[in-house]
Amino acid sequence: MYRTALKDMPSDHAVFASRYATTRQLTEKLAEPLGPEDQCVQSMPDASPVKWHLAHTTWFFETLVLMAHLPGYEPYDRRYRYLFNSYYEALGPRHPRPQRGLLTRPTVAEVMDYRHYVDAAMRRLFERAGCFDADSAAEQQHQELILTDVKHAFSGNPLSPSYLPAAIESEKTAPPLHWREYAGGVMPIGCGEHGFAFDNERPRHRVLLAPYRLASRLVTCGEYLAFIQDGGYRRPELWLSDGWTLIQTQGLDAPLYWSNTSGKWQIFTLNGVQPLQPAEPVVHVSFYEAAAYAEWAGKRLPTEFEWEAAGAAEPVAGNFLDPARPHPKPAPPGEGIAQLYGDAWEWTRSSYDPYPRFKPLEGPAAEYNGKFMCGQIVLRGGSCATPADHIRSTYRNFFPPSARWQFSGIRLAEDA
Amino acid sequence: MYRTALKDMPSDHAVFASRYATTRQLTEKLAEPLGPEDQCVQSMPDASPVKWHLAHTTWFFETLVLMAHLPGYEPYDRRYRYLFNSYYEALGPRHPRPQRGLLTRPTVAEVMDYRHYVDAAMRRLFERAGCFDADSAAEQQHQELILTDVKHAFSGNPLSPSYLPAAIESEKTAPPLHWREYAGGVMPIGCGEHGFAFDNERPRHRVLLAPYRLASRLVTCGEYLAFIQDGGYRRPELWLSDGWTLIQTQGLDAPLYWSNTSGKWQIFTLNGVQPLQPAEPVVHVSFYEAAAYAEWAGKRLPTEFEWEAAGAAEPVAGNFLDPARPHPKPAPPGEGIAQLYGDAWEWTRSSYDPYPRFKPLEGPAAEYNGKFMCGQIVLRGGSCATPADHIRSTYRNFFPPSARWQFSGIRLAEDA
Amino acid sequence: MYRTALKDMPSDHAVFASRYATTRQLTEKLAEPLGPEDQCVQSMPDASPVKWHLAHTTWFFETLVLMAHLPGYEPYDRRYRYLFNSYYEALGPRHPRPQRGLLTRPTVAEVMDYRHYVDAAMRRLFERAGCFDADSAAEQQHQELILTDVKHAFSGNPLSPSYLPAAIESEKTAPPLHWREYAGGVMPIGCGEHGFAFDNERPRHRVLLAPYRLASRLVTCGEYLAFIQDGGYRRPELWLSDGWTLIQTQGLDAPLYWSNTSGKWQIFTLNGVQPLQPAEPVVHVSFYEAAAYAEWAGKRLPTEFEWEAAGAAEPVAGNFLDPARPHPKPAPPGEGIAQLYGDAWEWTRSSYDPYPRFKPLEGPAAEYNGKFMCGQIVLRGGSCATPADHIRSTYRNFFPPSARWQFSGIRLAEDA
Amino acid sequence: MYRTALKDMPSDHAVFASRYATTRQLTEKLAEPLGPEDQCVQSMPDASPVKWHLAHTTWFFETLVLMAHLPGYEPYDRRYRYLFNSYYEALGPRHPRPQRGLLTRPTVAEVMDYRHYVDAAMRRLFERAGCFDADSAAEQQHQELILTDVKHAFSGNPLSPSYLPAAIESEKTAPPLHWREYAGGVMPIGCGEHGFAFDNERPRHRVLLAPYRLASRLVTCGEYLAFIQDGGYRRPELWLSDGWTLIQTQGLDAPLYWSNTSGKWQIFTLNGVQPLQPAEPVVHVSFYEAAAYAEWAGKRLPTEFEWEAAGAAEPVAGNFLDPARPHPKPAPPGEGIAQLYGDAWEWTRSSYDPYPRFKPLEGPAAEYNGKFMCGQIVLRGGSCATPADHIRSTYRNFFPPSARWQFSGIRLAEDA
Repeated sequence: MYRTALKDMPSDHAVFASRYATTRQLTEKLAEPLGPEDQCVQSMPDASPVKWHLAHTTWFFETLVLMAHLPGYEPYDRRYRYLFNSYYEALGPRHPRPQRGLLTRPTVAEVMDYRHYVDAAMRRLFERAGCFDADSAAEQQHQELILTDVKHAFSGNPLSPSYLPAAIESEKTAPPLHWREYAGGVMPIGCGEHGFAFDNERPRHRVLLAPYRLASRLVTCGEYLAFIQDGGYRRPELWLSDGWTLIQTQGLDAPLYWSNTSGKWQIFTLNGVQPLQPAEPVVHVSFYEAAAYAEWAGKRLPTEFEWEAAGAAEPVAGNFLDPARPHPKPAPPGEGIAQLYGDAWEWTRSSYDPYPRFKPLEGPAAEYNGKFMCGQIVLRGGSCATPADHIRSTYRNFFPPSARWQFSGIRLAEDA
Repeated sequence: MYRTALKDMPSDHAVFASRYATTRQLTEKLAEPLGPEDQCVQSMPDASPVKWHLAHTTWFFETLVLMAHLPGYEPYDRRYRYLFNSYYEALGPRHPRPQRGLLTRPTVAEVMDYRHYVDAAMRRLFERAGCFDADSAAEQQHQELILTDVKHAFSGNPLSPSYLPAAIESEKTAPPLHWREYAGGVMPIGCGEHGFAFDNERPRHRVLLAPYRLASRLVTCGEYLAFIQDGGYRRPELWLSDGWTLIQTQGLDAPLYWSNTSGKWQIFTLNGVQPLQPAEPVVHVSFYEAAAYAEWAGKRLPTEFEWEAAGAAEPVAGNFLDPARPHPKPAPPGEGIAQLYGDAWEWTRSSYDPYPRFKPLEGPAAEYNGKFMCGQIVLRGGSCATPADHIRSTYRNFFPPSARWQFSGIRLAEDA
Repeated sequence: MYRTALKDMPSDHAVFASRYATTRQLTEKLAEPLGPEDQCVQSMPDASPVKWHLAHTTWFFETLVLMAHLPGYEPYDRRYRYLFNSYYEALGPRHPRPQRGLLTRPTVAEVMDYRHYVDAAMRRLFERAGCFDADSAAEQQHQELILTDVKHAFSGNPLSPSYLPAAIESEKTAPPLHWREYAGGVMPIGCGEHGFAFDNERPRHRVLLAPYRLASRLVTCGEYLAFIQDGGYRRPELWLSDGWTLIQTQGLDAPLYWSNTSGKWQIFTLNGVQPLQPAEPVVHVSFYEAAAYAEWAGKRLPTEFEWEAAGAAEPVAGNFLDPARPHPKPAPPGEGIAQLYGDAWEWTRSSYDPYPRFKPLEGPAAEYNGKFMCGQIVLRGGSCATPADHIRSTYRNFFPPSARWQFSGIRLAEDA
Repeated sequence: MYRTALKDMPSDHAVFASRYATTRQLTEKLAEPLGPEDQCVQSMPDASPVKWHLAHTTWFFETLVLMAHLPGYEPYDRRYRYLFNSYYEALGPRHPRPQRGLLTRPTVAEVMDYRHYVDAAMRRLFERAGCFDADSAAEQQHQELILTDVKHAFSGNPLSPSYLPAAIESEKTAPPLHWREYAGGVMPIGCGEHGFAFDNERPRHRVLLAPYRLASRLVTCGEYLAFIQDGGYRRPELWLSDGWTLIQTQGLDAPLYWSNTSGKWQIFTLNGVQPLQPAEPVVHVSFYEAAAYAEWAGKRLPTEFEWEAAGAAEPVAGNFLDPARPHPKPAPPGEGIAQLYGDAWEWTRSSYDPYPRFKPLEGPAAEYNGKFMCGQIVLRGGSCATPADHIRSTYRNFFPPSARWQFSGIRLAEDA
């Protein structure tokens, strides 16, 4: 899913310029370990080639910022408007999504030239008098997708290529799970008028919550393994109907990237194939798997409102994107509630519906979030592939309930 | 969708016996205009043969009531447990849903024998001392499905067979649409502990609503036609993303059963093909179409909570199932809010999520509603094919957003 | 496959009238054991409802004979031209083949009225002075299809309905297989100018054959079972590439209608489920299975020319259609070559290509055979479901190599 | 389709070594204009990435030659046995064909290292005393596929990349078509015992042919355009049934790579998009299109035997693979029969059946040709992408009747 954000807000243009440059550099750093072939491949329709991410984010600034705001700007190549439009109907026809991997041209080198051309124009724009309203959040979303899409593509290669050297070392134990209680009541939900946020986080409104409890940390691989070993994938009473159909027809019996050879569980990671670490949070589960696990545990998933009411009270800190080690870590020891931010996007028990009085952005960006508000589930909190300054308590991510290639995990809840 | 209900409640068994008999007779009356071939066909996987509905509802009483409560009861044919189980995993394997139409045996006559055998046993059960907790709501749901499934099957026959004689005469005008305002606030939602309801309507809980307005009647065919003529099906900005993809890939440009020959619109009904009546409510639209229409009209769909808060204050009265004329009617004249009940199921802007502290029924009936709480949209109010004593303000129907073969229509809402 | 035949030939019209009446009566006799539901169902796109066969053959005489030759003839219902056209592009659009089973109307009773209406008109035509050139071969082809299509539909019903009472009694042993040698040379192939034949059997021409041998009888179920037990379905080296893919993707491990319960083989027949009879010829195998069996046996399948050169020297006699027992029988004892005619259509090692100087029929019948000459395999000799007077040595049946629902079997050949 | 050949025959090993080196160099020359992304993409399941062709041909020599004949040979990477096996069941499991394009590793550079490693070992093998029986024909087949697969991949890119500079200049006129008559009779067909040939060309045998005529050259683009303009794609009576279904469901109305913009026809070629040249032979047509064209022209396609009888009498000369211009040319002026060899593979009216007494090769190569002898059509004569020393009069190429991405064209025939 791609979503942008353009909000008028007073700001120093130097801050924008600096954040823009930092974001663009990080994107390119993420592509560095990859050769031209790796950057061109598309392993499934939901994923995109890395090269396409590099070009699309550039197209985004060119089309929605430079064309609108930089007088005399000339597009790098007018045909790119068709090639690198993601889903904006208002911006004309576009290359079919499942065929992005067939675009061997422009080459990676040509795409890098395109990036530099647009970066130079953006610098000119930033240098003009007055502040400017461009934000880099849109490109940050693709940084996470670059990692998840490369992981998916590499996982299908029998050679099991590593994106990064095998250097994962993590704590061997996770703290015991305990329950944190919340009183509920009428709680403010969503982002107020000021500050950056996507349109789907607005407007701020009030929601009435009953008392509830949240688990102090994410479900671990070890706990999930117990679910598997207890026949979790063979007991229909634990599953939503669509989920049961899915695991039957696709023959699923473990999270994505898990494999079992001679009784030994291994996990494919961006640092190569690793032995399963019981203390690490489980990731790459679908909503169906998350819900079945919760049912098996005698608990439930939190609603997105329960999550946000808890998250708003916590600092936005956690295991976010580290280009050298994009992988979840065991929860740290301590009494508080851990891992609300970072490590894994948390599936909630909330369908992705519009907030009361929701209004999409104006212009082409109107297509950014609202048109996907059907058939998807809200995830909260960011993951180990999310840039640290990209997340906030009101942030609503969303994916179809069957999606497994994101760093999606499980936090349990219960009624108080 | 099939859902049952078994609730303990004090009651006179004579009431149950009478209601049972009435329900069973109505079901058979609905099958009367149909020959053996008509009752055997299955026109799509979502629909079922009439004969299957006749047998499945019988299987339901046999399996969930007689086997559990009537000592010494012998099943009519033990193989029917496999043939006529709808989706209960706890009750063992079952005939694949898309292949129900291939079951030419048992014949219609044999299924009627099966019904009579079970009816006789049910009478014995009702005659036993004490009250009994069986309810006929489950079979009533299939009465509506018999009509919608026959309509779908007949609509695909180039001979355009009529289920009933062509006798539709309706008012030629609908009253002007006006807006009814609701103050919102903390409202009770769902069914309390007493009285019959399905599990998905419970528990009763409180929801905080902002002020809102509802349209005084359903959207009419004439109003929907204006949407079509204004290019509604060709403007992507009006549509949810999945809806736009659907109408593109399937080439949709009008509600189900509408056809345009030489500029003249006609509608296939259970009383044969009829000229479009502008004053009648539009039915057989998907959630996507309902949402696109609302967007075009500058309005929105109500949430299921807004609908229930309004519906709870109105008498449960309207154009419900009349076996001689299962078709929506124009709204009656008057100042109040019309058609909340009957005529058309109203698509809401609420995904079908569980209520806080929702608990499924015990036993096999646990599979009745909860396992479908993903990927579906709530509809409210009942239709012209819903038995009058089957509906209530807390009733939550649900279908996938693409479903069009039900009598589903549109009521607009707006913020106050 | 449907194919017609209209050949000018001198003849007594009484012969035609009699043969017409006999054919029509036999068709209706074949439908007698079936109820209305049984006659309406279509269990796969390749099969058709019995009711459709009853109507299509009637449409055939109405459209290609009565409309052309009986002055003043009025069609029974002009809409049937669309409903019951099989595949004649020249005769306009037609109901989609996979949706024939959705036509609950006209009912079986109405189709019988249609038949009687056309029969009366045909009698008037036969009574006119002079001879007439209609032939009943086209309807005879559908007699065989009625049986194979009903068998397929009933086989998918868990109740295992029987078309006929369980009355199969056959010889328990088959004679030993020996080899009959043929000298080859330049052999005449195909039908000469006189006498009835389909267009694909003409013109008569010469083919050069090397010496060869044919097995004295069909492969038996017992012999085929040895192939299965020797791992025949698990050894890719025995299979054509497409065949191997097919059995892998569909999980095939035995002929159609064979089942193995607790180590005991049973076969679903038109007379109900029966224990496998080792002496009976194996039927319901695909070309792929026939070819794999031959490979396993160290032999090969005969070409259609080798078959015809042998068949031309034998009387056209064998186990043909007996409405009371449509099932293959063990070969009779004796020295000669047995079962060339009847029992099972024999897969040849010949693709269905046109004969040199092949010319299709004139008019709509041009579409009868020629347009299917691609991607199909020739079968020879007729089966236990073929009317005795329908077959001849030059007759070329054809089906795709994957087809299994016909009475198709195996005769081995080898080089001499 | 991939097929190999290993025949024992006396020969000078220097000839083999030289031919091997030449073949390997040509393959790499064909890959030279392509970047790493271009060599990794797979545009459809029937096509393969160039990188895969480079590796598979290397795997072929490694597995079937070096492992068997060079003592002490160590495979380059044992995992390649799985990755680069095409379809040899006897050589174990293999990477699924439709997923070849997902293998971004090994990179192009690593595949080139693999090639050099194997080349060095092959040189050692050639230097050993005695002659050796390896042949380079297998790799030559992939040279043609490299060109057709790149063409297909590039054609789907909206940027219309050119494999080679736009340098096509050809004669603007084709000589008039005249007819060459052949007497037929008993003709030898297939390859004798000596000399190199694939197994499907053997054994040599005799076929009886009636007199016939062949067109003096291939059908041109201009002639094919007349067929289109005469409604060729809208007249079902011209088409085989499967072909008509195909063009309807896929919406085909011209050969692959043809496009019509504002009434002007253009053709995508390996030298970029070019205006249609009426004098050039039409290529990239399916068998269905070839047969429909012949029907429209009142002619037919030749059988493979008619073609071979004619081809055997002609020198093997024509427009073969020129790496600088892989494109068909107009027929040269002259009285003789032209273009039998080169320019375009000619669809015959012969299904791909085994020759009498056909025997596959021994060992893994048994899977080379025989297992594809079902459902395919024979093509003859080689194309503008076929290496000149790869073709001969007995050569049988084969593809499914729907294949269009090869350089396949049309030669007409008629009865004499």
